[in-house]
Amino acid sequence: MMGKYLVGIDVGGTTVKCGIFTVEGELQDKWEVPTRKEENGKNILPDVAEALKKKLQEKSIASDEVAGIGIGVPGPVEPTGYVHVCVNLGWTDRWPAKEMAELMGGKIHCAVGNDANVAALGEMWQGGGKGHENILMVTLGTGVGGGLIVDHHIIAGVHGAGAEIGHIHVRDGEKEACNCGGHGCLEQYASATGIVREAKRVLAAEEATASKMRDFGDALTAKDVCDLAKAGDALAEKSIGISMHYLGLVLADVSMVADPELFVIGGGVSRAGQYLIDLIKKEYEALTPLLNKKADITLATLGNDAGMYGCAKLAMD
Amino acid sequence: MMGKYLVGIDVGGTTVKCGIFTVEGELQDKWEVPTRKEENGKNILPDVAEALKKKLQEKSIASDEVAGIGIGVPGPVEPTGYVHVCVNLGWTDRWPAKEMAELMGGKIHCAVGNDANVAALGEMWQGGGKGHENILMVTLGTGVGGGLIVDHHIIAGVHGAGAEIGHIHVRDGEKEACNCGGHGCLEQYASATGIVREAKRVLAAEEATASKMRDFGDALTAKDVCDLAKAGDALAEKSIGISMHYLGLVLADVSMVADPELFVIGGGVSRAGQYLIDLIKKEYEALTPLLNKKADITLATLGNDAGMYGCAKLAMD
Repeated sequence: MMGKYLVGIDVGGTTVKCGIFTVEGELQDKWEVPTRKEENGKNILPDVAEALKKKLQEKSIASDEVAGIGIGVPGPVEPTGYVHVCVNLGWTDRWPAKEMAELMGGKIHCAVGNDANVAALGEMWQGGGKGHENILMVTLGTGVGGGLIVDHHIIAGVHGAGAEIGHIHVRDGEKEACNCGGHGCLEQYASATGIVREAKRVLAAEEATASKMRDFGDALTAKDVCDLAKAGDALAEKSIGISMHYLGLVLADVSMVADPELFVIGGGVSRAGQYLIDLIKKEYEALTPLLNKKADITLATLGNDAGMYGCAKLAMD
Repeated sequence: MMGKYLVGIDVGGTTVKCGIFTVEGELQDKWEVPTRKEENGKNILPDVAEALKKKLQEKSIASDEVAGIGIGVPGPVEPTGYVHVCVNLGWTDRWPAKEMAELMGGKIHCAVGNDANVAALGEMWQGGGKGHENILMVTLGTGVGGGLIVDHHIIAGVHGAGAEIGHIHVRDGEKEACNCGGHGCLEQYASATGIVREAKRVLAAEEATASKMRDFGDALTAKDVCDLAKAGDALAEKSIGISMHYLGLVLADVSMVADPELFVIGGGVSRAGQYLIDLIKKEYEALTPLLNKKADITLATLGNDAGMYGCAKLAMD
């Protein structure tokens, strides 16, 4: 590799997060570009390329000093780099890496990956998973996402379903359907939405027990449940315990398939911090009697920048 | 690679299965060597080396025509090739590949892997998974074993627990303990032993329903359960249905972690054939609504030779 710099471009539904890094992983500068989704998102990559060229000029970085540009896409990416459909961007039938390379003059190596997978790569490179080569990153947000890295490489899966751990079945007899059409998926209990749903079920089932969760009514959030659980509210503790039991169960499943050395927990819900990690760890460890040595569980550290970091790392590989 | 031949050596608890292959995967000759476990199994590799030298001489194959020798070990093998303990062979603190290379004169490349993992590699190379690069091999025998291959490479896991799918939790509330110490592992329902246990539970729970399974008493085997289910015995169909539901569930879990293109089902129980595959497929497909295109499920074809084939393939990589 000749260049000294890497560029990470994490394309989201509303903004594109861009960053220039040294090949050692030090962030030099970052900025955002609005995601223009109109006309099937045809302006998104040209907008990014224009802003990037300007930024490189501003920082007196020549094209041949850029070792690579990585692009993260919020949807499935085939191993060839082909994007069949990306609903969140309005894209159909696109080759984002090839297009970006052309926009930048045809001489810079470009790569593309799915956003959840590149976020895992980012956390491994410069975040909670630094120093490790085999990790599962879990994103607890509106949904439950995952990114699996084995021996430094993303396991994307032949149908793009690699590390789709939010859709592992954990509860029999569930009546409500998950977004995927299944019943009893992890996402239904451990996402921000799922944590609230479970809390409301616990409240309904234990009508006679007092809980401050009741004061929030329909406005109850996952953060409220975690905060009240930390404060000792019995029903909040019970419901977050159920949610994290299922997450621990899924991490145990992942250990029995890919056996990583570390789980990195990120996403909005993970702001509950070490309290949440301790809950997950307790469940996970009880469910992996086969392992003499358990995988560790830790918090993600890069927040919303994880994808941008991972895009840069992707361009290096 | 210079040589035209590969050697596969699958070390089992009672016999060592040895085979000479062309690098294209055609079996040239195979033979067995008894496994002498006395004195911490110190004779096992020398016995194999002696027999191999004789065989090569007999077939007029020179050492430099052998591209590599692969060894399968019935226990955990670290990524470095180190075997800490192998209870089934009496080994502790061994480097099987290094030792075999020395025994053969120091010039032939040797490799070592876990037996379940190399069996998966064998089925991918020349068996039910031929033509694929991403498979999970499931062995339904006394226990439930697995071998996961992603992009041609074995996923052994950092603690050697890769593809230990027999110990994925599938049933809550199980009272009996699994060999691993857990409760409700797949192995407790879908192994040969597990299928019989489940059948006996179904018989006990449905005392009023007639079933030919009752005639077998304590001698009931997994084969009997499958045969009677095929013949339309209602309780046999019910119990094998439960067992295969759990297997289908675990394959769905694996799809949401590693997303392979094919599941290859082997081991003694798989002699029940296409009937079993159809049962598993029905459950698996119902449990993977996220996948537009499902992984296929097929029978293993190499039987007890899968490990030997996989050892040879391992030596080539």
